[in-house]
Amino acid sequence: MTAPGIGSRPQPLRPIWLDAESGDVTVIDQRRLPHEVTLQALRTVDDAIQAIAGMVVRGAPLIGVTAAYGMYLAARHAAGHDLGIDYLAAEARRLQVARPTAVNLRWAVTRVLQAVAAEAGHPARVARARSTAAAIAAEEADNCRRIGAHGLPILEALSRARHGNTLHVLTHCNAGWLACVERGTATAPLYAAFDRGIDLHVWVDETRPLNQGARLTAWELGRYGVRHTVITDNAGGHLMQRGRVDLVIVGSDRTTAGGDVANKIGTYLKALAARDNGIPFYVALPSSTFDWELTGGGLEIPIEERDPDEVRFIEGWDGAGLRRVRLCPEPSAAANFAFDVTPARLVTGLITERGVCQATAEDIGRMFPDKIK
Amino acid sequence: MTAPGIGSRPQPLRPIWLDAESGDVTVIDQRRLPHEVTLQALRTVDDAIQAIAGMVVRGAPLIGVTAAYGMYLAARHAAGHDLGIDYLAAEARRLQVARPTAVNLRWAVTRVLQAVAAEAGHPARVARARSTAAAIAAEEADNCRRIGAHGLPILEALSRARHGNTLHVLTHCNAGWLACVERGTATAPLYAAFDRGIDLHVWVDETRPLNQGARLTAWELGRYGVRHTVITDNAGGHLMQRGRVDLVIVGSDRTTAGGDVANKIGTYLKALAARDNGIPFYVALPSSTFDWELTGGGLEIPIEERDPDEVRFIEGWDGAGLRRVRLCPEPSAAANFAFDVTPARLVTGLITERGVCQATAEDIGRMFPDKIK
Repeated sequence: MTAPGIGSRPQPLRPIWLDAESGDVTVIDQRRLPHEVTLQALRTVDDAIQAIAGMVVRGAPLIGVTAAYGMYLAARHAAGHDLGIDYLAAEARRLQVARPTAVNLRWAVTRVLQAVAAEAGHPARVARARSTAAAIAAEEADNCRRIGAHGLPILEALSRARHGNTLHVLTHCNAGWLACVERGTATAPLYAAFDRGIDLHVWVDETRPLNQGARLTAWELGRYGVRHTVITDNAGGHLMQRGRVDLVIVGSDRTTAGGDVANKIGTYLKALAARDNGIPFYVALPSSTFDWELTGGGLEIPIEERDPDEVRFIEGWDGAGLRRVRLCPEPSAAANFAFDVTPARLVTGLITERGVCQATAEDIGRMFPDKIK
Repeated sequence: MTAPGIGSRPQPLRPIWLDAESGDVTVIDQRRLPHEVTLQALRTVDDAIQAIAGMVVRGAPLIGVTAAYGMYLAARHAAGHDLGIDYLAAEARRLQVARPTAVNLRWAVTRVLQAVAAEAGHPARVARARSTAAAIAAEEADNCRRIGAHGLPILEALSRARHGNTLHVLTHCNAGWLACVERGTATAPLYAAFDRGIDLHVWVDETRPLNQGARLTAWELGRYGVRHTVITDNAGGHLMQRGRVDLVIVGSDRTTAGGDVANKIGTYLKALAARDNGIPFYVALPSSTFDWELTGGGLEIPIEERDPDEVRFIEGWDGAGLRRVRLCPEPSAAANFAFDVTPARLVTGLITERGVCQATAEDIGRMFPDKIK
């Protein structure tokens, strides 16, 4: 299998799509990027759960879309085995716990389940599950385009303030199109600025343990022609101290109604350094990552702890193939926390599909009056 | 070759010694730890320079000791070729620029050169170079023992405050005996607390790019029996937010007379997180790492930029041997800053061989009145 558009000129590309012939869901296996572009077919709910839990797909919006398509796979199975809505509800619960932090997962699955439950008969349910998943994917793509448009003026203003000299942006992890559906969240304003001809350079945090920055963001930016430099997760503070970062933009896996941001582990450290050096720190997010139930500072967000071997070992390209090597002594224990919470007080602003707002309950409430509880 | 004491019960062990038979300098090749314990013989000044620049040896005190022994190798060569003090002065200059950040390098080389210059005749010069290098090594070992003794009460007090529950200490990079000569700087109070029976657990930052934490600190602590957990460099902020770190201790490569600390890249980020969460942040250092010329905030300290391939690639154990794998796309650029500067305002205290002082020009001056300019 080859992915559409990969290897050719930059064009809108998606990390997930429905195979027209088989009706299976197809995803890019992000564990093997940038070294190999490999596709994986998801034929069952278990395939979808494993793709989410095993980080074949990752990034809050894409996790939501994959889970939505997982509900389509469940509906297809239900049709083949004449299973009712109880089966779908049970499968929904299994999907919803595939990963604990991204709130989109819960939200997207619930939305498909409710849509399907409104239909009678298997053909209608399968069709409705498929169209709802596709609608979620289309909305996420549209959200990213809007986030790009709303974020662009921030970069334009900073570029003007620098008299057109190179604008240096730091980003953490991958909140690009691989994490979303198109254009990404944190990367959308970058791509928009690049398209507008702004002289742009991106510092890419490698983002241990799974190196989504070094592997995915660097690959995306390179493919689009955006100048970038990979750095260790340790380096950002030094660069900010020395005036070599003009702006930080990251994504979000779950955002409280008060503007606290759960994002990839290490985001909080970059936010502290940005604050200490007077550098704007923006979070780009579709409103699907808001958890409107949360109003208490974000420390109530469950933080996923993953397999310690993701820290003890690392995978890379040895010239002939992917190879996994051990980094620490055989007997040493490791711990692997996947996310941290950046308090709203450290966030300059949230770039959403509706516009830019401050990371405060008041300002978020003004922008999303229909959503707040 | 096997290293003395390696593989046996914990005992004072050194990363550098003079081979009694050959008169060559012997070092542990720290690039291959923890996977292999390999020794390297240094026979010439160039061997010493390459060992320092290539990070066969690393850590400010050990860099100084190695350079001092490099001057002994220079004196031995001078004796064999009847070269004068001009030759030794030129070799001293070459040694002093092997790495730019550790101030011990400059200091130790100057000290040996001055001692040798006071002697007439080759045999006396060689003997004096050797004894001066040995004296520096002995002083660093003694400094570490004193740092351990002065740091111990800090850990004892915190342990009492926790009613004897496990004391969680976070450290960055390796400021252990591998970086020093014996017992280490940041680790000396940890070993002292462990010896005293304090229930201790150490969070070990892996410390990309060269993973001195995951490789060296974890190996040292494990060998000594100290409970520890390796984490990514991204994780410390999260752990501090959740109350899972009681104390941070790190080493220093160069310290200003005002208490600003140049240490391994990423130290500054941990200091910011410690401050944000009210956690004490101590720096353990022998006074040989003070740069008494510097009084201006530390941003004047030259920060070494190393080969970007140290970021683009990583080395680990593949089950049969050491293997290097690429982490990012082939065409992506990388940058590799080796140190950052933690401003004195973020440092709770300095643990030196003379005692603990605040990171202020006044308090440092009170502790080292004989040293300040």
